Amino acid sequence: MNEFSTAEWHDAPPLSKEAFEAAIRAVGEERYHDKHPFHKMLHGGKLNKGQVQAWALNRYCYQEAVPRKDAAFMSRVHDRELRREWIHRIHDHDGLGEEGGGIERWLVLTDGLGLSRDYVTSRKGALPATKFAVEAYVRFVVEQPLVIAVASSLTELFAPAIHRERIAGMLENYDFVDESVMAYFKRRLAQAPRDSDFALSYIKAHAYTRAEQEACVDAVRFKCNVLWAQLDALHQAYVTGLVPPGAFTPES
Amino acid sequence: MNEFSTAEWHDAPPLSKEAFEAAIRAVGEERYHDKHPFHKMLHGGKLNKGQVQAWALNRYCYQEAVPRKDAAFMSRVHDRELRREWIHRIHDHDGLGEEGGGIERWLVLTDGLGLSRDYVTSRKGALPATKFAVEAYVRFVVEQPLVIAVASSLTELFAPAIHRERIAGMLENYDFVDESVMAYFKRRLAQAPRDSDFALSYIKAHAYTRAEQEACVDAVRFKCNVLWAQLDALHQAYVTGLVPPGAFTPES
Repeated sequence: MNEFSTAEWHDAPPLSKEAFEAAIRAVGEERYHDKHPFHKMLHGGKLNKGQVQAWALNRYCYQEAVPRKDAAFMSRVHDRELRREWIHRIHDHDGLGEEGGGIERWLVLTDGLGLSRDYVTSRKGALPATKFAVEAYVRFVVEQPLVIAVASSLTELFAPAIHRERIAGMLENYDFVDESVMAYFKRRLAQAPRDSDFALSYIKAHAYTRAEQEACVDAVRFKCNVLWAQLDALHQAYVTGLVPPGAFTPES
Repeated sequence: MNEFSTAEWHDAPPLSKEAFEAAIRAVGEERYHDKHPFHKMLHGGKLNKGQVQAWALNRYCYQEAVPRKDAAFMSRVHDRELRREWIHRIHDHDGLGEEGGGIERWLVLTDGLGLSRDYVTSRKGALPATKFAVEAYVRFVVEQPLVIAVASSLTELFAPAIHRERIAGMLENYDFVDESVMAYFKRRLAQAPRDSDFALSYIKAHAYTRAEQEACVDAVRFKCNVLWAQLDALHQAYVTGLVPPGAFTPES
């Protein structure tokens, strides 16, 4: 899954912590999904309602996978303090007690777009490529060394900018989107930086060799690919117009 | 891992819910680890301090595996309500915020027995057979259908009786055990019934066919085997006296 080979970095000295962080951040410039044409169309008001519906119900699969990814990660962690830190990510998505959590806020968004909750949560209308991509992320954190698994979460470094842009662009451009349905992104503006600060500190402390550092950078590329592949699938199905058999078809 | 074959129950009608529950409960009578000679020695004051230390540091591996098992289970659950219910099991073991949790209480017990925390949490002195058994449990909930994974938790039905017996027997029989170190078991007296009530209701609602019901009963047998194997390993090493290379060796 990860194309990276540690052999090529076997003899290289480790990067300084600053250079390591810079290499991680450079991945965002290179390939974060804000560079994808579908993203630009979404934020720029170039999509019709059916295309926004398709985006929201496919993206639900990603939202829904994230707490499972975090649980899969925790299932491998013998360090109780790390589990106690990481579990708040599950709380953020699933809620805790009275708090409904991010997935509930995502369903408020799909409600607002006129999609039935049963249909969205069944994931039956989602594109197979979406599901393959998000499950690859769940597997990645099971199969990779822990520090590399942590690194794969670091697309959160790039998320607040895209969320701010998304909130503004979608509110401005779509009459079927209002403040209430954008609650998910507003909450993530506060949550994502806490998470990425922790994950960045963690990998800086625990990636000791150049090979481990490069594998961390590659994990961020992998995660960008997971996000990019989702927009590719949406573009293919709902812009190019080749909707795969069984997938959501917008009403005329 | 699970010896059960669904084929033999293919044509059988499902058990009534009462008969299904009775079949689950019967497994406890048949093979719960309170029947093991090491358990009887532990509770009856027949062990010396080194043997109780060996039990506590091996059992730490099981305690430590349980929240990872629960996270592994959650990583497979698409139903958010089920995850929101299940996560409290992780909180019970790992604690949440100010609350230290069951593993912390277990370490109070190992502290009380004079074992170093670093040594206990390193799991370096634990018997390999202990680690193999508890990791088999983590794998079981990843590999089996969800309803069968849930059923494997149901040894909790049998736990309160053994915990009450353990608290009384250990306090009475060992001068190196006091109330504070038994806090783990006292807390479990309240937690285990809540968990087993939920799990029992869940499997009664979600095991539809006789084959699924029998697989659930077999999951409880599997889990009893996980517990029994741990006491077998302790008995072999610390009663028979064949301590494997690298494992904890009591002083004198």
